[in-house]
Amino acid sequence: MFFSVLKEDTTTRARTGVLFLKNGNVLTPAFMPVGTYGTVKAISGDALLQMEINLVLSNTYHLYLRPGLDTLEKFGGLRSFTGWKGNILTDSGGYQIFSLSSLRKIEKEGVVFRSHIDGSLHTLSPEDVVKAQKIIGSDILMTLDVCTPPGISYREAAEALEITSLWAKRSKYCWLSLQEDFKGQLFGIVQGNFFKDLRKRSVEEILELDFPGIAIGGLSVGEEQEVFYDYLNYTSSLLPGNKPRYLMGVGTPEYILSAVENGIDLFDCVFPTRVARNGTVFTSTGLLPLKREYNKHDMEPIDKECNCRTCRNHSRAFLRHLFKTKEIMGPVLATEHNIFFIQNLIKNIRKNINLGNFRQFKEHFLQEYLGDK
Amino acid sequence: MFFSVLKEDTTTRARTGVLFLKNGNVLTPAFMPVGTYGTVKAISGDALLQMEINLVLSNTYHLYLRPGLDTLEKFGGLRSFTGWKGNILTDSGGYQIFSLSSLRKIEKEGVVFRSHIDGSLHTLSPEDVVKAQKIIGSDILMTLDVCTPPGISYREAAEALEITSLWAKRSKYCWLSLQEDFKGQLFGIVQGNFFKDLRKRSVEEILELDFPGIAIGGLSVGEEQEVFYDYLNYTSSLLPGNKPRYLMGVGTPEYILSAVENGIDLFDCVFPTRVARNGTVFTSTGLLPLKREYNKHDMEPIDKECNCRTCRNHSRAFLRHLFKTKEIMGPVLATEHNIFFIQNLIKNIRKNINLGNFRQFKEHFLQEYLGDK
Repeated sequence: MFFSVLKEDTTTRARTGVLFLKNGNVLTPAFMPVGTYGTVKAISGDALLQMEINLVLSNTYHLYLRPGLDTLEKFGGLRSFTGWKGNILTDSGGYQIFSLSSLRKIEKEGVVFRSHIDGSLHTLSPEDVVKAQKIIGSDILMTLDVCTPPGISYREAAEALEITSLWAKRSKYCWLSLQEDFKGQLFGIVQGNFFKDLRKRSVEEILELDFPGIAIGGLSVGEEQEVFYDYLNYTSSLLPGNKPRYLMGVGTPEYILSAVENGIDLFDCVFPTRVARNGTVFTSTGLLPLKREYNKHDMEPIDKECNCRTCRNHSRAFLRHLFKTKEIMGPVLATEHNIFFIQNLIKNIRKNINLGNFRQFKEHFLQEYLGDK
Repeated sequence: MFFSVLKEDTTTRARTGVLFLKNGNVLTPAFMPVGTYGTVKAISGDALLQMEINLVLSNTYHLYLRPGLDTLEKFGGLRSFTGWKGNILTDSGGYQIFSLSSLRKIEKEGVVFRSHIDGSLHTLSPEDVVKAQKIIGSDILMTLDVCTPPGISYREAAEALEITSLWAKRSKYCWLSLQEDFKGQLFGIVQGNFFKDLRKRSVEEILELDFPGIAIGGLSVGEEQEVFYDYLNYTSSLLPGNKPRYLMGVGTPEYILSAVENGIDLFDCVFPTRVARNGTVFTSTGLLPLKREYNKHDMEPIDKECNCRTCRNHSRAFLRHLFKTKEIMGPVLATEHNIFFIQNLIKNIRKNINLGNFRQFKEHFLQEYLGDK
């Protein structure tokens, strides 16, 4: 057994569950911090484990370029290379190939692209991507997909979907052929852009392949908020209950709460860590930009209700000072707070689902968090 | 009682001791990491305390400019501003005013200088500097001095010395006037450039003022290594045994060992933390530049004999990867290692002085550390 639902909410589709992974069980809903190059920026693995975060996301595209598969193979995988003791989910690199590299060609066979680092030319088939994730030693793998931005034509969206489904099938076969000495779980990705019939068709084609888990891709990619909510609701309603559901690229409190309400079990996003490095932190009443002048003499912690190391030890004034003087400890302390804040939200979400209070909790949290906005 | 000698070596002037400070007793010899803006770069105070480092140096010049004395006064001192729980030694800003700011004028009255940050004009008298350190809440304060580079004329050196002695006297009177509600200990600074009779005269004039501790300034400022050793030996031999001796600006293993051999109790330097942020780390066989290609597949820790968190969890290859991908965790992990390495050296120095083995320890350490160099 790979996934088990623990408790289902009665008024929403929210649920708690557990993923049984090789490197420790993961309670869901779970937020995965992003460790692009194999390690979450500005925070140690120990600190994440102390917060009970034992699943992080890494980017296959970045790891393939640096340190490279040769190094990872020599080390026996990413965990022994980085020293991370928890689980790893890797994306397929599809999103990065389309957004970061200078893409040369997308063919049914695979993709040809140039590295965003040195311009070198690379070819990756869906099979290569599965094998790369095996070398990384991922506990959860993703299929290579074609992720498209909002605003493209129906025909372009349909073509991207067809290739995504074809690649999903080839990925599955490749993954099955590797199972003898590899226990990573492969997730299929639903695409279909912002066309409901394409979303439906994608769900059907992915479900037919019977992956251990299902991801929703191509949302939170720049579309309007209303469109996001609409497509999240629509797509997630088509998914079966017995498999874990992963919404890719979501990580603000508002979107996380919506995702959970729609029955999502997993999400990831660079947002909490990226804005932290820039001096913006979460509080129970919304985002706080630490560098602003009004923090200069503020003796309060970032959030009085927060029990993270940053809030227990440091004032807003001191954190502002760290950012103004460009001290490395600024990003470090802000990152620790932001991940702790999101993880605390996740823990409260789980607790309230288990108590049957999820909807009230969500409303109460957002009322304070968004204020009059 | 402020300082007590615990054990004196029989074949060198090395000694162990203890400083009784308000925020915890400090075992000597002690290395002070530098927290320029009130906090050691890229490492938390908790991590320092875990290594049993409970005395750090901060720069009065930098703190005066940022966050400014108004903020520090409002917070009741630097410790409550930063959350640091150990002791603080502050320099007087003299060295920084002469090296960083665009200096306008040095008069018997004090210094007039422009901030290196925004060019604003500032005037500081020796009394202002003592009062600034009281606002900072320093456990050990330094007098304002005139630090000069190697190569100046005898006359220039003598003039700088005269002003240093005059300022030392004024600092002492000011400090005495503040004693009712302030327990920080003021150290006088010996200058005299690279002229032995001036060094001797400076020692005499400083000793006459009977400060709780004596610092040797103006060494390790760019002079030849032989000159450094010569002037360290000469100056330290003139100091009395009952007061703590502080050699300013020293922090490589070779210089630390020499300082200890010459009876020095305290030293500080940015070297261990600065080179760490640039990817260079200490090993028992010398410095290791982590970014070099030859570390790419190196599965060994920085130093097999080191028990720091970085060495217990991470390989040279992974650390190289962090620096190549410009991850913040590169500087963080390298800093933790370098400070741990120096602190471990310090602990071994203390242990071997107490066992009567200092000279053998020094020779053995340097043989391995310097190799054939």
